[in-house]
Amino acid sequence: MIIGVDLGATKILSGIVAKDGAIVKRVKQPTIKERSPKDIVNRIVMAINDLLKDKSLEAHKIEKIVVAAPGPLSYPDGVIYDTPNLKWGYFPLKEELEKRLQKEVQVEHDATTAALGEYFFGQKKQYKHLLYMTVSSGIGGGIIIDGKPYRGINGGAGEFGHMVVEPKGRICGCGRHGCLEACASGTAIAVKAKKLIENGEGLGIKTYKKEKANITAYEVGLAARNGDPEAINLINETAYYLGSGTSNIINIFNPEIFILGGGVIFGLEDLLLESISKYVHNNVYALHRKNLVIKASELGEDIGLLGCAAMALEQ
Amino acid sequence: MIIGVDLGATKILSGIVAKDGAIVKRVKQPTIKERSPKDIVNRIVMAINDLLKDKSLEAHKIEKIVVAAPGPLSYPDGVIYDTPNLKWGYFPLKEELEKRLQKEVQVEHDATTAALGEYFFGQKKQYKHLLYMTVSSGIGGGIIIDGKPYRGINGGAGEFGHMVVEPKGRICGCGRHGCLEACASGTAIAVKAKKLIENGEGLGIKTYKKEKANITAYEVGLAARNGDPEAINLINETAYYLGSGTSNIINIFNPEIFILGGGVIFGLEDLLLESISKYVHNNVYALHRKNLVIKASELGEDIGLLGCAAMALEQ
Repeated sequence: MIIGVDLGATKILSGIVAKDGAIVKRVKQPTIKERSPKDIVNRIVMAINDLLKDKSLEAHKIEKIVVAAPGPLSYPDGVIYDTPNLKWGYFPLKEELEKRLQKEVQVEHDATTAALGEYFFGQKKQYKHLLYMTVSSGIGGGIIIDGKPYRGINGGAGEFGHMVVEPKGRICGCGRHGCLEACASGTAIAVKAKKLIENGEGLGIKTYKKEKANITAYEVGLAARNGDPEAINLINETAYYLGSGTSNIINIFNPEIFILGGGVIFGLEDLLLESISKYVHNNVYALHRKNLVIKASELGEDIGLLGCAAMALEQ
Repeated sequence: MIIGVDLGATKILSGIVAKDGAIVKRVKQPTIKERSPKDIVNRIVMAINDLLKDKSLEAHKIEKIVVAAPGPLSYPDGVIYDTPNLKWGYFPLKEELEKRLQKEVQVEHDATTAALGEYFFGQKKQYKHLLYMTVSSGIGGGIIIDGKPYRGINGGAGEFGHMVVEPKGRICGCGRHGCLEACASGTAIAVKAKKLIENGEGLGIKTYKKEKANITAYEVGLAARNGDPEAINLINETAYYLGSGTSNIINIFNPEIFILGGGVIFGLEDLLLESISKYVHNNVYALHRKNLVIKASELGEDIGLLGCAAMALEQ
């Protein structure tokens, strides 16, 4: 058994996972952006301590604690560097967690962890070169080469979201203009929809906005499914950027399989996946599309926890 | 000893290379684009047969024949697929060479071969995650991960030139618009200079054009060094695209070292390298630029032949 924690921009998902990928226990808490890193560490420590006392563990030993966190995150020392989606500067996450828990903690990049989860438990080690791209508040990537996570020299590999797809596009959290994340993440869709509404446009999208809530990609999806042309336009633009970015990555890696995940894909799969796939097939080289599989993960939001188990198994 | 052949868009360089990287013999022939694949195969076969009879080989055994060719090129079967820079469609290069020579031939992607040459003989295996980008008629890439060439599932990995950096840019040989190759290769620089001159502009560049010759990146470089503002503008635009593409790749791979090579870099290093390096340092994440080395290869045009030797050693 392992304890896994998936620290995301909107939620912290922690749980107990068996080596076969069975999730024995799962706890979900919101991540509040305004909270300091120390507050978030407190939450993670409390969650882990609760899980360590869980009665489902009575007959079992916890062999590892694995925490997956957003990048850029160094490896193996687990330091967060200017992560745009948590708005944290330099923060030694692994060191803080270990000090508080008095236990060893393996800290891993979230999308790389998810990619390994998909490799082990989604695709059952069928494809040795697997890429995973998560589209949610941000856009991240995980790289599996020859069945192993590729982390780069400092742990920074996989920043698929920080590839410029529109040189004059929106400014990105990383400081560049027109990164894939700035053009096609859930946050980007929401910002564009909000701007339309502020300009007195996007009335079809506004219909779905709940009174005190912010507009999100979810409402844009609802409007698009109901034929609203402005929402369809936003979705098509998103699919174009995701298709273009994915094509770049496929020309570079020539993977066997490219898996998409994250809240935007899970929520808008019916609107996005076919267009992305078609775009890629029309734009990459014949050699690169030969036998290429593009699909959405079937692991849903558990992908991070399963990835933590896979990371523990892999070492 | 090995026989290596580096098949490029403008030249075929063949030679005899010792295991320590000493080039014992070197023969250079032009590649003529209008020639058919069969004609080029004839040239390669003749060159290899001449080298096999070379008297410097009397006391030595040829252990391998390695041919490096432009991508997309499948591995291990060595089939060329729609290679834009040779304008060849599907062509089974390895099969044809082996049939003609009645010997085993290892056919490898040129930029991957050069990257391994740089890893072995340029950087002396000092950096385990090394990327190489060649900027010449086209733009290609080679990926070394953990000291091994990464080829992707079909041999197609490393197409750094076929990443879109300007969505509304020039059409590329691969069919997409605004690929790095279409915006910043030697061919792209020449096309842009030619267009200026056709429009009655670019007089400073035109000064350096030899009467019956086509304008190339070389003349643009001469004009830029002499302060011609249009040439400087073209060079700056090239450096911007190369810097932006390189930044994308560094955010994705987090390599230890990024090596630039190819005719455009070797010829215009004084004009391009510092700008590219500065752009990258200002645009990638702090984690990714930590200890990052960016430099031009010192192996010159021998990088391909040395790569052939490295490929033979690696197997």
